[in-house]
Amino acid sequence: MIHFKAIGKVMGALLMLFALMMLPGAGFAYYFDTGDFDALLQSSLITFSFGSIMFFSFSRQDQNIRKREGYLIVSVSWLLMSIFGMIPYLLSDLSFGISDAIFETISGLTTTGATIINDIEAAPKGILFWRSMTQWIGGLGIIVLTVAIFPLLGIGGIELFVAESPGPTSDKLHPRIQETAKRLWYVYMGLTILAGVLYYIGGMTFYDAVNHALTTLATGGFSTKNASLAHFTSPFIHYTAIIFMILAGTNFTVIYFGLTGKFAKVWKSDEFRTYISVLLILALGLSAPVIYYSGQGVEKAFRDTLFQVVSLVTTTGYVTADYTSYHSGLTMVFFMLLFFGASAGSTSGGIKFIRHLAFFKNSWLEFKRIVHPRAVVPLKINGDRVTGKIITHIMNFLLIYLMIFTISSIIVSLMGYDLLTSFGAVATSLGNVGPAIGRVGPMDNFAFFDPFTKIFLSFIMLLGRLELFTILVLFTPYFWRAN
Amino acid sequence: MIHFKAIGKVMGALLMLFALMMLPGAGFAYYFDTGDFDALLQSSLITFSFGSIMFFSFSRQDQNIRKREGYLIVSVSWLLMSIFGMIPYLLSDLSFGISDAIFETISGLTTTGATIINDIEAAPKGILFWRSMTQWIGGLGIIVLTVAIFPLLGIGGIELFVAESPGPTSDKLHPRIQETAKRLWYVYMGLTILAGVLYYIGGMTFYDAVNHALTTLATGGFSTKNASLAHFTSPFIHYTAIIFMILAGTNFTVIYFGLTGKFAKVWKSDEFRTYISVLLILALGLSAPVIYYSGQGVEKAFRDTLFQVVSLVTTTGYVTADYTSYHSGLTMVFFMLLFFGASAGSTSGGIKFIRHLAFFKNSWLEFKRIVHPRAVVPLKINGDRVTGKIITHIMNFLLIYLMIFTISSIIVSLMGYDLLTSFGAVATSLGNVGPAIGRVGPMDNFAFFDPFTKIFLSFIMLLGRLELFTILVLFTPYFWRAN
Ligand SMILES: [K+]
Ligand SMILES: [K+]
Repeated sequence: MIHFKAIGKVMGALLMLFALMMLPGAGFAYYFDTGDFDALLQSSLITFSFGSIMFFSFSRQDQNIRKREGYLIVSVSWLLMSIFGMIPYLLSDLSFGISDAIFETISGLTTTGATIINDIEAAPKGILFWRSMTQWIGGLGIIVLTVAIFPLLGIGGIELFVAESPGPTSDKLHPRIQETAKRLWYVYMGLTILAGVLYYIGGMTFYDAVNHALTTLATGGFSTKNASLAHFTSPFIHYTAIIFMILAGTNFTVIYFGLTGKFAKVWKSDEFRTYISVLLILALGLSAPVIYYSGQGVEKAFRDTLFQVVSLVTTTGYVTADYTSYHSGLTMVFFMLLFFGASAGSTSGGIKFIRHLAFFKNSWLEFKRIVHPRAVVPLKINGDRVTGKIITHIMNFLLIYLMIFTISSIIVSLMGYDLLTSFGAVATSLGNVGPAIGRVGPMDNFAFFDPFTKIFLSFIMLLGRLELFTILVLFTPYFWRAN
Repeated sequence: MIHFKAIGKVMGALLMLFALMMLPGAGFAYYFDTGDFDALLQSSLITFSFGSIMFFSFSRQDQNIRKREGYLIVSVSWLLMSIFGMIPYLLSDLSFGISDAIFETISGLTTTGATIINDIEAAPKGILFWRSMTQWIGGLGIIVLTVAIFPLLGIGGIELFVAESPGPTSDKLHPRIQETAKRLWYVYMGLTILAGVLYYIGGMTFYDAVNHALTTLATGGFSTKNASLAHFTSPFIHYTAIIFMILAGTNFTVIYFGLTGKFAKVWKSDEFRTYISVLLILALGLSAPVIYYSGQGVEKAFRDTLFQVVSLVTTTGYVTADYTSYHSGLTMVFFMLLFFGASAGSTSGGIKFIRHLAFFKNSWLEFKRIVHPRAVVPLKINGDRVTGKIITHIMNFLLIYLMIFTISSIIVSLMGYDLLTSFGAVATSLGNVGPAIGRVGPMDNFAFFDPFTKIFLSFIMLLGRLELFTILVLFTPYFWRAN
């Protein structure tokens, strides 16, 4: 028996909080008088009413939340936020179809940042703020998940590498999860405010600065400008975005260590060192051909390259240059970045370095195992031994990720889109990035897709955001049969 | 210390045999008087001389062949055959560059079947026969490898699923490897003759029948006709090809069981059942859209679909219809077939069903392991338990396969080819298939590539043919440091 009442209570509380998050958008709508105040206020009231009814209906229940309820809570909470998060779009003057509203909301909550809005600057400012807020909520949600919930559920094999999980390979940030979550929340909040201040100093309006701060820390990538960050020509703003995207893609535990002066612990993280090194190597290595093919000045070409590399690897998806305009080989390289993902325990999506690292290290050791078949050749990460069970789980994750990518690409192409567009749209949705290649390149949007494909891609975003297994396990008999 | 003298002796013997295999081509050249008799005879003499010098120089050596020499023998023998196999092309009137000769020879020996010859029917018949013969030799070589050598070397994780390997999950075909090899040789030879007879009955000339019989059983796919098997309109010939491609893609141990009436053992093979089921499902499932989009009669459309599915899945690469002409979604589906591969212990290349099966079964069990983290959930294939070590090894193979595909595609695209052509050329080379998508679709050839890319793709064919690890291990320090 699944304890549905326990789930209902948690969901009710979540929806009430979610409703409150709609109010700042209403505030901007009122201030700018952009005509979307009513839509946001009504949405908030509707959501709050539903939430409070659910919460109080089940408030006297005494069911426990076990592992199985944990899976359902994660999936259902993202689903409920998607449903109620659509309401502002549907009540606004934007002529969104249902599939448009589903896409934009899920693209927000999953911090993907793909959009179906053709003219972003013409959209009412309150709604746009809500759009940025969905990403910030999603980013916060994923931090809570990776710190508090995934370790308990054993999702994706990286549970041992994120903050608060039990087991020998984890650095205990703080003994109690609740306390940890609070500290990570301060880090998230603090960095968001700092990014906003710097954007403001760099010349953004207060409104733009807040929006971009929210979507930077969420590695979300929604912008209030049609041209994304290419709209702002200030190098200061670009470098600010680069630094904060890198931070947002760092394990928040590692950031916390950094803030408290424990630099040895920061550098001990194999994932962090790999992440920073790969970003540097890619930016430096790709700058030369970009300088050559773009014909721009050295600083601008380097900045563009660094920006695009960081934006794609951290799965943010901001754009300051069209990386598909240089050379088809370079386009391929940038396309491959959609499969990177930054760090576990960050807001970034995708595969993430810890899994790549486990795969590469294990592959190398596999040769040693071939040459010395009787030797015991263990895989070590952060100096600690990784069990065979976790290696298997991580490699399974990688293969299932690629299989979902493949099958989904076929499905999208069967809907009549060309191969590159299909590959691109799926890769960027699954990795929660935003831009891609083909007809969904960095200068395009997703408005032209048919309703089925929009909803399908939204589902792919959710799959990616929740590390595949959280959702997929619900489709197996094991889950429903277990007691 | 590596026992190079032992390797030299084996290589010498191999080259002498290889030289003899050039003589039937010389015979056809003489009979048809196509002007390539001298080229073939000289090539044979040169190769035989080298081989005999090597063999007799080292004939008194008393070094052992150990596992390490085994790896080198496999890689070096393919390399030497590639070098000497080029000579007929270079001595002929065909104006082959070095890179052309390398490509055509390796495409033959690896049973890939991609070609750089624009007008095949204009090429001299002796050389064309040698071209078909290289595939047949390659097919024979891979049977010997998978039956006798890979099990000893522990390559690719499938050593336990092919014929003569030790360990609990293998069906012992016969106690002694030499005897086994002889029986598989009879099966290979017998099926080749049978296919040739049926092709001849179906209306091919004697010459065409022999050539196609050789390249069918090798799952090679070289044809003597520009239009491949589309040249022959006879349904009898097409169905003959379909049946013998399926047989060539079957584990030869399973065929041997079938020939000796042990049908229960045939059906017990999880790989064989999956292989046949998937072929049927794909052919039936794809027929409907092909009938719709091609506007052909039902029988022809079904035959075309079945033929193309079987040809791609078995990695043969014969063509009777342009599978890229229907719909971009269907093109994607056919493209994905390049990643299938048929059975371990057959002449087919690619990933092969046993690995797919291990991955799918293990993925499914992974959900069970998530829901029941304390339960022991073993993977079983053919009713026997598969160790964690082999599962890890197979998943590593799959991931390295996909990584090589990705990186190689980037390299090809950096040479200036569009993304689909790059993806297609690499996928079909790595899987030893032949045709692909983009500019290397089923109606195209590989002549337009620059010399670097031709040589690079040849290397990729070798990597795929030798199950990646055989070659890759030579690039690790573990191999050279071991004692
Ligand atoms: K994003
Ligand atoms: K082939």
